[in-house]
Amino acid sequence: MTSATPAPAASTRDRLLDAAAELFEREGMGVGVEALCRAAGVSKRSMYQLFDSKDELVAASLERSAPHYRAALLPPADDARSPRARILHVFERLESLEPAHGFRGCPFVAAAVQLKSAQHPGSVVARRQKDALTAFFQQEAERACAPDPARLARQLTLVFDGASARSVVQACDLDGLAVATATALLDVAGVG
Amino acid sequence: MTSATPAPAASTRDRLLDAAAELFEREGMGVGVEALCRAAGVSKRSMYQLFDSKDELVAASLERSAPHYRAALLPPADDARSPRARILHVFERLESLEPAHGFRGCPFVAAAVQLKSAQHPGSVVARRQKDALTAFFQQEAERACAPDPARLARQLTLVFDGASARSVVQACDLDGLAVATATALLDVAGVG
Repeated sequence: MTSATPAPAASTRDRLLDAAAELFEREGMGVGVEALCRAAGVSKRSMYQLFDSKDELVAASLERSAPHYRAALLPPADDARSPRARILHVFERLESLEPAHGFRGCPFVAAAVQLKSAQHPGSVVARRQKDALTAFFQQEAERACAPDPARLARQLTLVFDGASARSVVQACDLDGLAVATATALLDVAGVG
Repeated sequence: MTSATPAPAASTRDRLLDAAAELFEREGMGVGVEALCRAAGVSKRSMYQLFDSKDELVAASLERSAPHYRAALLPPADDARSPRARILHVFERLESLEPAHGFRGCPFVAAAVQLKSAQHPGSVVARRQKDALTAFFQQEAERACAPDPARLARQLTLVFDGASARSVVQACDLDGLAVATATALLDVAGVG
């Protein structure tokens, strides 16, 4: 794969990551290196100059999608609302990501399910991203003086992932279920 | 693939379903027909005599695993315990299916995540199995005279799937989180 005006390294990397994101989403993480390179219009040699292995490409692709997904879910950092409203914002946003618009559940849970090994570099990225969501919930629960902010945060993450799984399995919208379940847990914890 | 004493059709089917269950579990649903037939020691012709397509084999494999998974989770039908105890039994069982013993989360959610299309025959089986779990929760919630048994049942399913996702992503045991979260929802609904 030669070209009169070779693209700079950054662009080869972007083409690979774009192709990976699209193919992983559409066909799953089992997509082979050949298919990835073909879709990106990049030689295998170029790929291996940028990534040690397909596993590293998987991890980089997940890492790159994280800020976008985070921005789609979390409230702005300087939002003046109460902890309760800021926590519920996440569940309202999740409810808005409907299967009708191509939402296929939390991409990090999907990756961990497919990658099989918890030591896979992609599983490590997935875990870190879920931990970041839990950390957001915990920080808000602490601001609200919940009796056990760490546990409430883990419970809210669990509701988030369960709602996301429901979107995939039922392929219909959540109809308020995620918000209602998170609200019940906030009420039990006295986060008013 | 000929043999002096050909196995009866039932056994060829079982060999295919056993191989499918193992390969799907280990490598994911993207495993090809070639690899499936090789692992089962069955010709492609024999496979296509039994299943119209790989999609049908996926669905049959999921269908076959359902009674075992159900038995691992649900209490006996004639158990004399309260609805609350019978519901919590499911979460206690889920907590006992630790990643350390190879638990990779709910196999039906994993299938739906991987199969991409909600119309795939395997996704249809997955949805039916999750609906059966929700129906169990609803039946118990009705016995307990919960104010909105259908909603409580959906919420409990959501907690179940979130806890199962957590097992996969965190690759550590649930440490009581599934039971505690389900308990909180039962308390809110007045299921004592």
